[in-house]
Amino acid sequence: MTQYGEDNHEIRRRYGLTSRNGLMQEAFDVLRRNISASFPDVDDEITLMPPVIPLEVVEKTDYGKLFPGLFGIVHTRTRPDPQFALTASVCHHVYPEWRSEVKEIPDIRVVEADCFRFEESTERGRLRSFRMLEYVFLGAPADCLHWRDQTLANSSALFDRLSLRTELVTASDPFFGRGGRLLANSQKDEKLKWEFTAHVAQDSTIAVGSSNLHKEHLTKAFGIQASDGGLLHSACIGFGLDRLYLAMCHAHGADPAHWPLREPG
Amino acid sequence: MTQYGEDNHEIRRRYGLTSRNGLMQEAFDVLRRNISASFPDVDDEITLMPPVIPLEVVEKTDYGKLFPGLFGIVHTRTRPDPQFALTASVCHHVYPEWRSEVKEIPDIRVVEADCFRFEESTERGRLRSFRMLEYVFLGAPADCLHWRDQTLANSSALFDRLSLRTELVTASDPFFGRGGRLLANSQKDEKLKWEFTAHVAQDSTIAVGSSNLHKEHLTKAFGIQASDGGLLHSACIGFGLDRLYLAMCHAHGADPAHWPLREPG
Repeated sequence: MTQYGEDNHEIRRRYGLTSRNGLMQEAFDVLRRNISASFPDVDDEITLMPPVIPLEVVEKTDYGKLFPGLFGIVHTRTRPDPQFALTASVCHHVYPEWRSEVKEIPDIRVVEADCFRFEESTERGRLRSFRMLEYVFLGAPADCLHWRDQTLANSSALFDRLSLRTELVTASDPFFGRGGRLLANSQKDEKLKWEFTAHVAQDSTIAVGSSNLHKEHLTKAFGIQASDGGLLHSACIGFGLDRLYLAMCHAHGADPAHWPLREPG
Repeated sequence: MTQYGEDNHEIRRRYGLTSRNGLMQEAFDVLRRNISASFPDVDDEITLMPPVIPLEVVEKTDYGKLFPGLFGIVHTRTRPDPQFALTASVCHHVYPEWRSEVKEIPDIRVVEADCFRFEESTERGRLRSFRMLEYVFLGAPADCLHWRDQTLANSSALFDRLSLRTELVTASDPFFGRGGRLLANSQKDEKLKWEFTAHVAQDSTIAVGSSNLHKEHLTKAFGIQASDGGLLHSACIGFGLDRLYLAMCHAHGADPAHWPLREPG
């Protein structure tokens, strides 16, 4: 097996890009079905989002300010003034939908897209363009916290079913600047960000799943509130399908037909 | 039915973006299966390509020079010097693979990706981010011309099977500048570019398929030649899945289960 699948060409690997042949697509479907089984109360329909997003939408999330080095912005040679950015997290597409809709809470959206982050290195698993499947939750603060805790437990069970050894660790984003450091500290202190790490090579682990409790950060930014005016929180969990695939390949080989999957308990 | 599917939010429509819910994904699969049936000698496995591409690869194709207004380039706030572009045609991913491989000709690749073109308007069907399925052929000049003619005939049969009225017209790209005008004239005179147009609304037609005979233009640019040193040509045909879907919706409604599909003759 080559680094990112048999069909991948050297120039794609060097840039942290990947293509997906039929076997990888089958493997991704196996992963999707198993992830979906971890959310038994959620419709298993995934909405596919585009790889680009209006810049004005992402600007509301602070992503560009917090991660100026990762955040891809689109210009053309005749239109240097940018209007589009590259999707960095699939949930960014979801918040504008909630903003203008009558709310039925709690609500949960299942979304997938090709995401882009201009990572410094392209070591094994650290792609610049990668496929993310995300579950995004909107609800009252207590429901949001409960959903986050429940999804962490369900995801641990998911990785057991996949016979994949993972470690659940609290994490912080590598935020920049003084405000960023404060935010990073608060993420760790309040345990807002959790990651599931797995081996993608004998000496290399990487996050294959990431859970974020945003509290009121994004609902405030997008003006989302309950129809009775009550405060809403949001949370999400994202699965990096390429990384999960690499971890499964490392543990069980590249053919999903030979993966030792366990029935849901 | 809304313009680009029920689930789409106003801000996406305004920017020429679209999301795909489950019904649209089913519809796209129906289109893929029918397109694939038009290429009976070709393996029906599609390789998925990323929505971004190394800038150095696209620069070899002249796309950025010919379409500076359409061509999306990626920068970050800390790295203004661009290394990535947005995939404008899926076949751009294929040429570097041929370059460094021992050739078995003729060769054909089946590739799909989210493409981006910064179109001036976002009228019905004219998305900025859209899904393209492309068949790319590499072979001796006579084989290339024969394949092009054959695929035009097979695609006409495909649209008959889909019960979709299309018109096959010679076209030219809206190239810029003096060299561009010459190229556009040569495209029309030599009939290098053909498009299948279909109605996406009563008063609106748009290209749903586009065939290009590149002759030696791209094989030269990428240094692709036969192992005996002989000249190779390339050709491709691309299907705009979103546009094809809209045309089918206009003709037969949004539910692929009710599309009047005919068996391959």
